[in-house]
Amino acid sequence: MHLVVFNTLFEETLNLIGTFVFAVSGALLAARKNYDIVGMVVLAEITAIGGGVIRDLVIGATPPVAFTDVSYLWIPLLATALTFFAHVQINRLNAAILVFDAAGLAVFCVSGTAKALAYGLGPVPAILLGVLSAVGGGIMRDVLAHEEPSVLRAESELYALPAFLGSAIVVGIPHLPINSALAAGLTTILVFALRLLALRYSWKAPRAWRTPAGVK
Amino acid sequence: MHLVVFNTLFEETLNLIGTFVFAVSGALLAARKNYDIVGMVVLAEITAIGGGVIRDLVIGATPPVAFTDVSYLWIPLLATALTFFAHVQINRLNAAILVFDAAGLAVFCVSGTAKALAYGLGPVPAILLGVLSAVGGGIMRDVLAHEEPSVLRAESELYALPAFLGSAIVVGIPHLPINSALAAGLTTILVFALRLLALRYSWKAPRAWRTPAGVK
Amino acid sequence: MHLVVFNTLFEETLNLIGTFVFAVSGALLAARKNYDIVGMVVLAEITAIGGGVIRDLVIGATPPVAFTDVSYLWIPLLATALTFFAHVQINRLNAAILVFDAAGLAVFCVSGTAKALAYGLGPVPAILLGVLSAVGGGIMRDVLAHEEPSVLRAESELYALPAFLGSAIVVGIPHLPINSALAAGLTTILVFALRLLALRYSWKAPRAWRTPAGVK
Repeated sequence: MHLVVFNTLFEETLNLIGTFVFAVSGALLAARKNYDIVGMVVLAEITAIGGGVIRDLVIGATPPVAFTDVSYLWIPLLATALTFFAHVQINRLNAAILVFDAAGLAVFCVSGTAKALAYGLGPVPAILLGVLSAVGGGIMRDVLAHEEPSVLRAESELYALPAFLGSAIVVGIPHLPINSALAAGLTTILVFALRLLALRYSWKAPRAWRTPAGVK
Repeated sequence: MHLVVFNTLFEETLNLIGTFVFAVSGALLAARKNYDIVGMVVLAEITAIGGGVIRDLVIGATPPVAFTDVSYLWIPLLATALTFFAHVQINRLNAAILVFDAAGLAVFCVSGTAKALAYGLGPVPAILLGVLSAVGGGIMRDVLAHEEPSVLRAESELYALPAFLGSAIVVGIPHLPINSALAAGLTTILVFALRLLALRYSWKAPRAWRTPAGVK
Repeated sequence: MHLVVFNTLFEETLNLIGTFVFAVSGALLAARKNYDIVGMVVLAEITAIGGGVIRDLVIGATPPVAFTDVSYLWIPLLATALTFFAHVQINRLNAAILVFDAAGLAVFCVSGTAKALAYGLGPVPAILLGVLSAVGGGIMRDVLAHEEPSVLRAESELYALPAFLGSAIVVGIPHLPINSALAAGLTTILVFALRLLALRYSWKAPRAWRTPAGVK
């Protein structure tokens, strides 16, 4: 049972938008670090398809979808070309990028979890793979660019946690007496909204607990 | 022929202990680096299951065992919860952690090599995969946390070499006229003891040879 | 249809030379960073087999060839042993190493693309996997050694682009009325020559476009 999110066309469209925006974030980081066009392509591709490729290798879906549906390879190239000429302007669109990135996060965690369930994985592994689909590419982008992964840092607004919540809801959907597509759609919107709220109100995840005296 | 290490229950118990201790080391590093709870979970999971997941992908055992036996996902979450509240106290238990970590190293290299042999790999690849099972998660932990991998550094006490020796012994066991389970058990103890001795006496691996005059 | 590059023996020889030279580059980096013998072996192995292992995992060829043809594991060990004693002298052979490394780059991109095509991947994924076979190990080497990947940096002479061109030609070969082996051989020589010319004349890839006023 492959959990269909919305109808297929809409899901596909969201996935491609997510791919594009993730790729832009990779190409932008490369431009900021003064990498050349090769560095931009590498970071764009790895950010856009990295998480999904790992998910597909883990569930045994080889070749990964990014290597069978070439849209997933072409879109990062387009994103790189755009960023190559317009990175100054794009950087000024920071707020817009964060909104699209939130959409990518939302759709990737929901569709990643659904795909893991469809391949027979249990609920906990499916949640992990959903989150990995959503945040894995960004982690690989930061590691390749020799940066501390932003998703690990306490200064970052909530990112993986909304994806975790969304993935957890998705594994519960087949057991509920509701329309799966509708529920998956609402879950996507919830993750999207939570991420935007986290950005707006600087919601952050807690750090390891320290004693009041601040013992280190 | 899957080489059974001890009896299955004991091997499983050791594997779970190794998973727990490796996860604690990941969560502790995250706490030391002031990462948030997400960073703690990510580093705990990757340290605990990273090496085994790569091994399983290489031998074609998909989904990897960490995604079919959910203990391997839950235990790092428990380790994170514990570290979240008690990381100050745990840090003081450094010596105890190193002992448990040595146990994880020992059992993972032996069971990793045995699994690679069971999947039909030759002796040299099986040794490599045994070592990778034991040290791969720690390398991924350090890379994600933006640290130089400790296993590469000359300042570190012997870590990969005891695992290498243990894996090499394991590939010889089926060819010897002895009880496989007993021999695997003794090998595990040997790796464990070598690692502890290396810590106690600061045994280190040699660096590349330099001329007496110190030519760089 | 596996695209045969030259005759098999010659291709195999080139692959092994490429493996050796890539391994030397990994072991040398470890020596420069004062890592111990374990660090040298790890970086030698990952540089030599890393790209090919990822390619094989993606196309579903498990276990990867590096784990079935043990030459690919032994050669990095030999390269490490040589570098361990002779790294000072090898460092002086820098020009020779760059020539051999160019040969490795050329043969790996051609044979990697051919293998991806043989496993049924489309032209664009096959090009990506050819480039990945050629540059993936070097990226993993730099990431593990806590260095910024040289292939991303604008200061590096062309490296991935000649491989990209070679891979793109390889996917076109089966559609041309020419001898496949001859064409693949000429493509390998072209990539090799382009890389050497890039080194000789400091050809570099462009960075993201900036306005004349230097707006950052």
